[in-house]
Amino acid sequence: MPIIQFNMLEGRTTEMKRELAAKVTDTVVAVLGVKRETVRILIHEMGLQDFSVGGVTAQDRLAANGAAVNAAGAPTDYNATVLETAGAKA
Amino acid sequence: MPIIQFNMLEGRTTEMKRELAAKVTDTVVAVLGVKRETVRILIHEMGLQDFSVGGVTAQDRLAANGAAVNAAGAPTDYNATVLETAGAKA
Amino acid sequence: MPIIQFNMLEGRTTEMKRELAAKVTDTVVAVLGVKRETVRILIHEMGLQDFSVGGVTAQDRLAANGAAVNAAGAPTDYNATVLETAGAKA
Amino acid sequence: MPIIQFNMLEGRTTEMKRELAAKVTDTVVAVLGVKRETVRILIHEMGLQDFSVGGVTAQDRLAANGAAVNAAGAPTDYNATVLETAGAKA
Amino acid sequence: MPIIQFNMLEGRTTEMKRELAAKVTDTVVAVLGVKRETVRILIHEMGLQDFSVGGVTAQDRLAANGAAVNAAGAPTDYNATVLETAGAKA
Amino acid sequence: MPIIQFNMLEGRTTEMKRELAAKVTDTVVAVLGVKRETVRILIHEMGLQDFSVGGVTAQDRLAANGAAVNAAGAPTDYNATVLETAGAKA
Repeated sequence: MPIIQFNMLEGRTTEMKRELAAKVTDTVVAVLGVKRETVRILIHEMGLQDFSVGGVTAQDRLAANGAAVNAAGAPTDYNATVLETAGAKA
Repeated sequence: MPIIQFNMLEGRTTEMKRELAAKVTDTVVAVLGVKRETVRILIHEMGLQDFSVGGVTAQDRLAANGAAVNAAGAPTDYNATVLETAGAKA
Repeated sequence: MPIIQFNMLEGRTTEMKRELAAKVTDTVVAVLGVKRETVRILIHEMGLQDFSVGGVTAQDRLAANGAAVNAAGAPTDYNATVLETAGAKA
Repeated sequence: MPIIQFNMLEGRTTEMKRELAAKVTDTVVAVLGVKRETVRILIHEMGLQDFSVGGVTAQDRLAANGAAVNAAGAPTDYNATVLETAGAKA
Repeated sequence: MPIIQFNMLEGRTTEMKRELAAKVTDTVVAVLGVKRETVRILIHEMGLQDFSVGGVTAQDRLAANGAAVNAAGAPTDYNATVLETAGAKA
Repeated sequence: MPIIQFNMLEGRTTEMKRELAAKVTDTVVAVLGVKRETVRILIHEMGLQDFSVGGVTAQDRLAANGAAVNAAGAPTDYNATVLETAGAKA
C-alpha cells in the first residue's frame, strides 16, 4: 500500500525509470514486508526553471556552475544543479 | 475547502476532465456538506514511464499485456496498465 | 490507477470518510471507466492553523466569523473557515 | 528543510519563476529562521483543463468570462480563471 | 535532488523508518547517480480511516478480513488492509 | 489560484504559522499578480522520524549533532536537523 512519489528534474531515460521502479520496489518490499503488487511509484518531473534550492533555480545554478546540457536541454550532470556554490551559501 | 489532487495516466480528453471536475465536486459537496465554490480539483498526469505498480512501469505492463495504444500513444484501455499479470504477482 | 489525495481540515467522522471513499470511487469509476479496485483515495487532514486562504488561517477566520467549534475543537460549520469576509477581501 | 510545492496554472515566464523562488525563499528564511540553502521550492504547473474550482475547469471559466489568452494559450489575466461568476455560485 | 514522498499507513517503528530512509537512499543513489546528501525522503502517515482501495477504507477491509491489530491499533499485517477480498472485486 | 503546500518538521508555533501564511501570501501576490483570496497555503508537518536527508532521519541527525530539544520534543534549532555532518557526507 505504500504510494511513493518522486519529484525530480526531467530528463532521465526510460531505462533509468524502469530500473528505479524495480529497485525501489525491491527495497520497500524488503524493509516494510508488504506485498510487491501493493507498491505504487509515481514520478513527477520538473523543468530546470521549476526547482530551486536556496532561492536559485536549477537552471540558474547550472549556468552559474558552467555545467553542460545535452541535446535535449537536460543537464549532463544533475549534481551540478544543486551543488552549493560559494554564492548560494553566502 | 477540500483540495483534491488526482494523479493519473495522461491521455484523457477535455470532455472527460470536465465531467470529472463537475461530478467529483457534486459528490464531495453532497458527502461533506461544503459549499460548491470551496472545492478545488487538480489533475496531475503522468506518462506511462512514470507510473509503476509492483515495480513494473505502466508502459512495460501495457506491452506485456499486448494492449493497444491510440495515435497519441495513450492506452485504449487504461485498465490494461494495472492488470496484475501472473508475472507481476510472482 | 487514479490515486486521489484529499487535503481537508481535520474532524470529519469515520462514517463521513467511509462515505467519501465509497462515493468518490463510484464517481471516478463511472466517469473514467477504470476498474473499481484500481482507485486509491488518501486523506490528509490539516489542523485549523495549517490551512490558510488569502493569508488568513482557518483558525483565525473561524474566530473572526464567530463560528462555533465542537468539543473536539473542530468547526461545527466548515464553510465558516473559508467564507470570504469583508476583512479578507480588503 | 522546508520543502514547498507550488501548484499553479502553466504559462508563467522564467523571470517570474526566478523571482518567485528568490522572494518566497527570502520570506521563509525571515519567518522560520531556517538556513537559506535548506529551502527547496518545486513548481508543478497545470493546464487549464486540469484545474477546477467549484466543478468548473479554468478553461471553461476563462471562456465563460470572455477572457483573453495569449499566443501560447495562457490567460492574459490568471485571475479570470477563478473569478466566481454568478453561475458558479448558484 | 530527488524529493521522495512516502504515503503509508501509520504504525511503523522508528527502526523501520530509519532503515527505509537509509536503504531507499542507497537505491536512489545507485540508480540515478546523484549525490547522497541531495536525496530527501518524507513520510506521510495515514490512519486506517484515511486510505481506501476500491472504495473501502483500510479500517473496514481489515475488519472484513478479520485481521488483528496490535495494542496501538496498528495492523499486525499491513497486507491485510489491501488484500482484495471477493466483495471488493465484485 | 496558486495552491502552496509546505512540508516541514513539526513544532512551529501558531504565531509562526500565522505569520508564514500572511507573508508568503503577500509575496506570492506581489510576484504573480494574483488576487489575494485565490492563494491557499497548506502546511503538512512531519515528525523527526519522518524526514531524512542523505538517508539519515532528522531525529538521528539531531542526536548526532548533540542538539537540544524542547519540552515538546521539537528541536530548539531546526537547522541542526539538516546540517550536513562529516558522517553524512562520507
